[in-house]
Amino acid sequence: MRLRNKPWARDYMAEHPDILLAEPEKMMNGWHTLFGNGNPIHIEVGSGMGQFIIGMAVANPDVNYIGIEHFDNVIVSALEKAVEAEKPSNLRLFRANGMDLAKIFHKGEIDRVYLNFSDPWPKTRNAKRRLTHETFLKLYEEVLAEGGEIHFKTDNRLLFEYSLVSMSQYGMKLGFVSLDLHAEMPEDNIMTEYEEKFSAKGHPIYRLESHFTNS
Amino acid sequence: MRLRNKPWARDYMAEHPDILLAEPEKMMNGWHTLFGNGNPIHIEVGSGMGQFIIGMAVANPDVNYIGIEHFDNVIVSALEKAVEAEKPSNLRLFRANGMDLAKIFHKGEIDRVYLNFSDPWPKTRNAKRRLTHETFLKLYEEVLAEGGEIHFKTDNRLLFEYSLVSMSQYGMKLGFVSLDLHAEMPEDNIMTEYEEKFSAKGHPIYRLESHFTNS
Ligand SMILES: C[S@@+](CC[C@H](N)C(=O)[O-])C[C@H]1O[C@@H](n2cnc3c(N)ncnc32)[C@H](O)[C@@H]1O
Ligand SMILES: C[S@@+](CC[C@H](N)C(=O)[O-])C[C@H]1O[C@@H](n2cnc3c(N)ncnc32)[C@H](O)[C@@H]1O
Repeated sequence: MRLRNKPWARDYMAEHPDILLAEPEKMMNGWHTLFGNGNPIHIEVGSGMGQFIIGMAVANPDVNYIGIEHFDNVIVSALEKAVEAEKPSNLRLFRANGMDLAKIFHKGEIDRVYLNFSDPWPKTRNAKRRLTHETFLKLYEEVLAEGGEIHFKTDNRLLFEYSLVSMSQYGMKLGFVSLDLHAEMPEDNIMTEYEEKFSAKGHPIYRLESHFTNS
Repeated sequence: MRLRNKPWARDYMAEHPDILLAEPEKMMNGWHTLFGNGNPIHIEVGSGMGQFIIGMAVANPDVNYIGIEHFDNVIVSALEKAVEAEKPSNLRLFRANGMDLAKIFHKGEIDRVYLNFSDPWPKTRNAKRRLTHETFLKLYEEVLAEGGEIHFKTDNRLLFEYSLVSMSQYGMKLGFVSLDLHAEMPEDNIMTEYEEKFSAKGHPIYRLESHFTNS
């Protein structure tokens, strides 16, 4: 989803430092301080053009949301949407790589991680880049509070199969699985850009919720 | 799958006590003694008309197979097929209820449990009857040897979703998941009667392998 180059992107991003954050040092005091409240913090890794995370922020004012996306040219579209939505005070966007989660968040600071339509990296030699690879699960475990959950949606069958096994092997437990989310569409489901596109093509949407365990 | 009454069934069954067993007492000395070797024992609970378990027995002479089915009128069809296949020496059929597994097998005597297209029992109040309900998982755990696995196929989405969560909550780990088994049909896949019927209708076939853990 690397979009065409947008020469105006950098300037536009610089104009909205209150919502789009790019400097990890700024988070030294923690995100709860930044949000100015103790509400739970939910993040999306790979938030793309932001439709999901912004929709969630608007729908759930008592939760703080952070969309994390590593491409300028993608996150700038999320920023535009956030500006249109009048910058919900419980929303931040952060240009960063999911690999750096443990540098961005204090241990246990996060209550939920959303992964939506993550890049499938179908070749086995690229398995490490999948956001449900063990390497990433370790990071989520580090930043998630006890009882914190991962919520994952995708239309990609191979990635979903892989993720079920990867999480299970890691010792995580499944709390919920749907193999056709739209068959009984939950009232509070907020569609991502990819979800709209692929469900319109008739792909089933897979969804799971999982959590780490001490046992 | 309760078939029409077959008045001749009882007599026919009585004529083949070498392959169709109905008396638990006969197993007092254990199944390895009965098979006369130390080969691994794989069972199918709810084996229906037997196409799968007989196909497996013919394809894998170094494994012992037992098909367990509680309806006379169903298991008699499996018996007819087994007679046609010249009664493979590594095959037995057992008329019993899966609920009685712990009375039928010694602890750890079994190496694999197959569940194929198990009755879905869609109503929540009947969840206890699903062969992947905790009640049954406990039984499988008891009769399975360390490292023993459950292999489960179905076209029923709700039952498969339920089973993923039920096994995970129980503490089992997933070793394999396919959400469309026939998309990359494994060479050694042996179709069950239901699998033929529902894959012909275009239903995706789901499959998983799971095991119990000590950790
Ligand atoms: C396929 S898109 C899906 C976007 C959006 N979640 C949706 O469902 O419409 C995946 C996005 O994740 C981003 N991404 C992939 N790996 C990432 C990582 N390690 N850190 C941050 N963003 C990542 C990509 O740049 C891309 O925008
Ligand atoms: C839907 S049929 C599937 C048959 C076969 N496995 C197939 O895939 O074609 C389910 C079978 O499981 C049997 N069954 C259901 N619950 C059982 C139990 N608790 N013990 C033994 N058999 C059972 C039923 O009688 C039925 O024959």
